[in-house]
Formats: sequence, C-alpha cells, structure tokens
Amino acid sequence: MAQALALAARGMCTTDPNPRVGCVLVRDGQKLAEAWHHRAGEPHAEVLAIAAAGGDTTGATAYVSLEPCCHYGRTPPCADALIEAGLARVVVAATDPNPRVGGRGLERLREAGVAVAFGLLSEQSEQLNPGFFRRMRAGLPYVRAKLAASLDGRTAMASGESRWITGAAARADVHRLRAQSSAIVTGVDTVLADDPQLTVRDFTGDFLPPRRVIIDSQLRTPPSAGMLSDQQGVTIIHGGTMPGREPALVNAGAELWEATLEDNGHVGPTGVLEALAAVETNEVLLEAGARLTGAWVQAGRVDELIIYLAPHLMGNEGRPLLELTGLEQMADRLPLKMLDQRMVGDDLRLTLRVGDREEG
Amino acid sequence: MAQALALAARGMCTTDPNPRVGCVLVRDGQKLAEAWHHRAGEPHAEVLAIAAAGGDTTGATAYVSLEPCCHYGRTPPCADALIEAGLARVVVAATDPNPRVGGRGLERLREAGVAVAFGLLSEQSEQLNPGFFRRMRAGLPYVRAKLAASLDGRTAMASGESRWITGAAARADVHRLRAQSSAIVTGVDTVLADDPQLTVRDFTGDFLPPRRVIIDSQLRTPPSAGMLSDQQGVTIIHGGTMPGREPALVNAGAELWEATLEDNGHVGPTGVLEALAAVETNEVLLEAGARLTGAWVQAGRVDELIIYLAPHLMGNEGRPLLELTGLEQMADRLPLKMLDQRMVGDDLRLTLRVGDREEG
Ligand SMILES: NC(=O)c1ccc[n+]([C@@H]2O[C@H](COP(=O)([O-])OP(=O)(O)OC[C@H]3O[C@@H](n4cnc5c(N)ncnc54)[C@H](OP(=O)(O)O)[C@@H]3O)[C@@H](O)[C@H]2O)c1
Ligand SMILES: NC(=O)c1ccc[n+]([C@@H]2O[C@H](COP(=O)([O-])OP(=O)(O)OC[C@H]3O[C@@H](n4cnc5c(N)ncnc54)[C@H](OP(=O)(O)O)[C@@H]3O)[C@@H](O)[C@H]2O)c1
Repeated sequence: MAQALALAARGMCTTDPNPRVGCVLVRDGQKLAEAWHHRAGEPHAEVLAIAAAGGDTTGATAYVSLEPCCHYGRTPPCADALIEAGLARVVVAATDPNPRVGGRGLERLREAGVAVAFGLLSEQSEQLNPGFFRRMRAGLPYVRAKLAASLDGRTAMASGESRWITGAAARADVHRLRAQSSAIVTGVDTVLADDPQLTVRDFTGDFLPPRRVIIDSQLRTPPSAGMLSDQQGVTIIHGGTMPGREPALVNAGAELWEATLEDNGHVGPTGVLEALAAVETNEVLLEAGARLTGAWVQAGRVDELIIYLAPHLMGNEGRPLLELTGLEQMADRLPLKMLDQRMVGDDLRLTLRVGDREEG
Repeated sequence: MAQALALAARGMCTTDPNPRVGCVLVRDGQKLAEAWHHRAGEPHAEVLAIAAAGGDTTGATAYVSLEPCCHYGRTPPCADALIEAGLARVVVAATDPNPRVGGRGLERLREAGVAVAFGLLSEQSEQLNPGFFRRMRAGLPYVRAKLAASLDGRTAMASGESRWITGAAARADVHRLRAQSSAIVTGVDTVLADDPQLTVRDFTGDFLPPRRVIIDSQLRTPPSAGMLSDQQGVTIIHGGTMPGREPALVNAGAELWEATLEDNGHVGPTGVLEALAAVETNEVLLEAGARLTGAWVQAGRVDELIIYLAPHLMGNEGRPLLELTGLEQMADRLPLKMLDQRMVGDDLRLTLRVGDREEG
C-alpha cells in the first residue's frame, strides 16, 4: 500500500479534479503490475494496472489507495473492471469520501465474491488528497496560505516593497506548490503593489495550470496587469455590477464572477471557496498579503499556513505577517500546530495547521 | 580530540571565568586517563588527567582542547606539569586566544623537547568558549539574545501581557541557557511589566549562578522587585547619580554601576559590555523586550539570536520581535545566518548569527 501511495503521488500535479490514486497488483508475493491515475478523462489506476498485467490477473490482490469507483463517470466503473479481471482480493486505503458513494465500490466487489479490506494507511491517502476529500465531504476546497516573511515576521517593508524576501530555492518551492494546486488566489492590492504573474514557471514535470483568481470587490484590477496580458486566464471575483469597469477587464481576457459583499464591504472567503468548489477546485493556494490572508485565517478558512522565513530582519515598521483584529489577551491567540519545518536554501519553511483541531 | 572536547563541555556551567577545557592522555593507542576543568581555582584539565593516570605518563600523548597555560595564575602552569610528567607529545585544538600569551605554552613545551601540534578541531574548541575567546581577543563578552515570540513575531500582546508565550519545554531550555551564561541582562521595562526572577531554576546539574543585570538609565527599578527580594544579587546599570533613588535600591541589596548615557539618553550596550568584561564575564544572555534587544542588535552588539517561536498567532497589534529603526528599503534589512533550528516541545527554537560575517 505504501507503494500504491507513492505511485498515487506521481499524479500530484495532473489528476485535477480527480484524486491522486495508485494501484499495485500482487499474486503469490510477486508484483504483477503497478499504475497511477494520470489525468481526468484517462483510465483510473486500477484499470491501468490490470492492463499493465497483460490479462493474467486471476486470483491476484489489488492494493488501491482509494476505494474503486462504482459509477459511470468519464470512465467505466473500476469495481467492475476489478471483478472482470478475476481478482481474489482488493485492499483499499481510504474509502470514497463522498458520503453518497462511500463504501459502495467495496460493496459491489463483496457482492461479486471478491474479498475486501480497507483502512490500511487511509490517513496517508487522505493527506495526499486533502482538497478532494474536503470538497466531497464539505463542498469546499482545501486552502493553503503561503507567506514569505523576514525572521521578524514582516511581509513587506513599510514602503510596500516585498521582492524578493526569500531566496531562489524558496521561490522554486512555491512554484512546486502552485503546480499541485487547482487555483491560486490573490488580492487586488498585491496585484497593484507587485503585479505578479502567479504562473507555474520554475518547475520541471507535467502539471495542469492552476486557475488564477483575484479577489477584487471594487474591480480595481488594471486591465494592463501582467496576469491579464499573458493570456493564460484570470478569474476576478468582485461584488455587485460595475458597468464602468467590467468591459475593459473582459476585453483584457478576465472572467468576472460576482459575489455578495460581506458586512465589512469585502468579498468574503466562504463565497469565494464555494464558487471555486462548484467548478471542482480541490486545492487552493492563497498567495496574498497580510490583510487578505489575515481575514481568511480569522474567518477559519485557511487550513494550512506555509511560511518561508528568510534569515534577515525587516524591522517593526514593515508590514505584519497577518492582520488579525481583536486579539487583546493571551487567551485570544489563534492556535497553530507545527506540521513540518525545514530549510529550503537559506530560508526556513514552516508548515502549520491553523486551529488546534487534529483533522485538516 | 573529539573526546577532549566532549569532556570540556562537561564544565559548561561551572568553569567561569575560565574556559571549558578537556584533556585525554593516550599511549600506544590506549587511553591512560581523561579529565576536564571543573571550576576556577581548581586544577586544570591537564593536571587532573596526569593525576588520574597515577604517575605513569612517560612517553604519552596529551590531547588538550585549549593550549596549556604557561603562567602562574590561581594554579601553577600546566605546560610545566606536562613537561614534568614526561609527555612525548601534546596535541592542542585551539591556541590561547589572549594575544599576549597565545603560542607561549606551546613554545615552552617545544623548548623542553615535547613534540607539539595544534589546530585539530580548533574551531569546535572556540565554539565551546565563545565568550572566553571574545573577551581575550576583544575585551567584550559574547552576547546571546533570547526572545520568545508567537509565529507572527510578537513578543507581547498589545496590553503588554507576555506570559507565557512558549511552553514548559522551551522555558526549561532557557534555564539551561541561563545556567551556562555568566550574566543575564534585562531592561527595567521588563522588570516593571513582568517582575521576573531571572534565576536558574528548572535545571539539573551543577552551575554558577549568573550575575543578574538590569539596564535602567533612570533607576526606575522598584526596590520591591522580585529580583531584589530573593537576595541573590542584582547589578543595576544606570546613568548619572540619582541620590533620591540610590539608597533604597542599595538597601534592597542592589549593586549600582554608573554608566555614561548615550546621545539618545539611554545606557548603551558597549559601556555595559565593557564593564561586564572587566569583571570577567564571558557569556551574556540578554533577556529583554523588543526595544532593548532591538537597540543592541542594531548597535551590532548581539552575536547570536535565540528565538523560541510558539505555534500561535498573537496578531499585528502585539509588540514586535525587535524594534529596529530606519529600515526603509529591502537593502536596509539586517542579515542573519541560521545556525540551528529544532523543535523544543511544541515550540520551534531558532539559533541565528547576527550579521553575515562568518565568525562569531
Ligand atoms: N510576503 C508575501 O508573501 C506577500 C505576498 C503577497 C503580497 N505581499 C505584500 O502585501 C501587500 C498587500 O497585502 P494586502 O493583504 O493588503 O493585499 P491583498 O493580498 O491584495 O488583499 C487585498 C484584498 O483583500 C481584501 N480585504 C481587505 N481587508 C479585508 C477584510 N477585512 N476581509 C476580507 N477581505 C479583505 C480587499 O478587499 P477590497 O477588494 O474590498 O479592497 C482586497 O480584495 C503588498 O505590499 C504586497 O507586496 C506580500
Ligand atoms: N517575549 C519575550 O521574550 C520578552 C522578554 C522580555 C520582555 N518582554 C516584554 O517586552 C516588554 C518590554 O520591552 P522593552 O524592550 O520596552 O523593555 P526592556 O527590555 O525592559 O528594555 C528597557 C530598557 O531599554 C532601554 N532602551 C529603550 N530604548 C533604547 C534605545 N533606543 N537604546 C538603548 N536602550 C534603550 C531603556 O532605557 P531607559 O532606562 O533609559 O528607559 C530601558 O533601560 C514587556 O511587555 C515585556 O513583557 C518580552
């Protein structure tokens, strides 16, 4: 199963909106075949593994990192393929997170006389697909927020200058994060301050270009912004119609989504995330400044913080890491949980879960 | 030599103001004896090792982590002891950092026909004694600044509340740092805000209680402060005579040192450190707030930053990690170098060199 998970991980940047799934076929202690799901629309891992085994799979055991599907989607159901292949046993890591289908694939196998087992390394399978699981269970994507900061927790100088806080290795690491994300979200003030591309560049390997999203209540994004001029698609989420500003942005290639403004006059995270889930967005990477990221963290809409701490001091007049309001006493602090810490070049990368709940 | 260094480290909290030194005696590939210097006034490592060998040291090789002394201090010169013991060879890690005596001990041995070698793991020997080396070479102690902060780099809530930012394991780690320090320095505003003890408590093992120092230009320290009432000695460094405030503090047991005020009206770091070096202070632990620590960092008087990052967010209204003035552009940033990063309980401890010079 560990092998099946490692195989699944090979689809890290290409399976969207499907989950990353791997499969290993074994008989008499010998591996017959292995495969992983590459792309939505292409065959699932189980079907690829059966094909790779070249027809000789009778009596074999399949280790699959996610419960085989039992419905006709873009491909025929994998449960049926496993039954036809004459498998004796199917071991599954995680069952399907979709409450309406979870367990059905296993049931179908069982009914056909195939022995089934599940739960082996199921947490790892889920961790490999946090967005898919979250979307199936809660109708929302999984949100990572990335911030680059100095060691004293500053995301920009007082002047607004913030390029480049971190070194080349950390920046390449961000491109890897982007490649595995379904969408990159930023705010209009970052667009105005930094005019970023938010494309995947410094990355070798296959990937699906993530959707690029700008949160921009008042449509302040300039039609000349770099993200628009590269013609790779931008979604701008705004509040209310703004006839004066819409045509120029649409002409520049932007897709405009209208959202309801929250009481504070801003587009809020929940509407944005629901809209993104509706277009099958699994994993969101929020690459914004202290205000937008702070607002999302405080709204409980960020699951994971990824902070690159650069080895220098920017001073107390620099912009904070996160703008968080109303934290007055020690008891008001927002808890985090350190998941990982490692050097990336000269910078320290911290990965933290937001909140103290155990589950992401 | 690695063994000699490990032995030396056993004197981590007790040799002050002497350096930590270890010695191993070897003959024909066999270890005859080993020892380390325990306390000033007691025999040096070489002499203890010779004694431990029980008289039979002729023709042996001594591995000593620091050049044997050649002058009468509180104990007779070790070079002579090694000569008398009939050693064939002395291998030294670091030569004596005191420019006036460096190399003399080796010379004395050489003149007596003992083969000498030096330089093996000399950097490690120096790292074991950063304060002793700094004081001998530059007449200043080595300064570590410790800060406890939230992940967003806050050292206190807006209200001033700062206890406890970090967990029990990190706090115990600070007691270990205190135990190996010659002096703990804090500022009067920390005394007023937190009324700390700054004693070594949560530590098992032998140690010399470090001198506790309060930087307090205007003698605002209340005679009722906890640091005074425990009768374990406090040094208050102030500027100019203040007849109205001095007697009460002296009565409460404080030792008052007068320093010249800098142009900004505060007692500056250089005078404080020179005064501490004059009383043979090797290693200073600065445990102050963002203003005092920031001023010392900006004055180039902090060698090492030890930051405990707690896994929570205190918000942008909290006190900064360091108050640093005049950093406007990215080019003004103060460079650091990450030396170590590890978890201590739930907190992350970062050790950084201040500045980008290689040598501490
Ligand atoms: N170090 C880093 O990792 C990093 C990354 C990105 C940017 N930056 C720096 O960060 C600065 C910009 O940061 P920023 O956060 O102000 O800009 P931002 O990331 O562009 O966010 C602005 C967006 O957040 C919305 N917003 C503001 N307050 C909100 C609230 N309370 N609730 C919900 N939404 C809210 C704004 O709404 P409206 O549309 O209604 O105005 C706008 O859409 C720049 O200096 C940039 O260089 C640093
Ligand atoms: N998280 C932590 O690790 C930690 C540790 C300690 C304290 N704290 C918190 O930090 C806060 C106090 O911090 P603080 O730095 O203001 O107080 P502090 O550490 O007590 O420092 C005050 C001292 O610094 C001097 N000073 C102020 N500005 C200076 C400058 N520009 N140059 C030289 N010296 C200067 C003051 O001079 P004068 O004598 O002339 O006034 C005073 O002697 C409290 O809220 C406390 O709870 C946090």
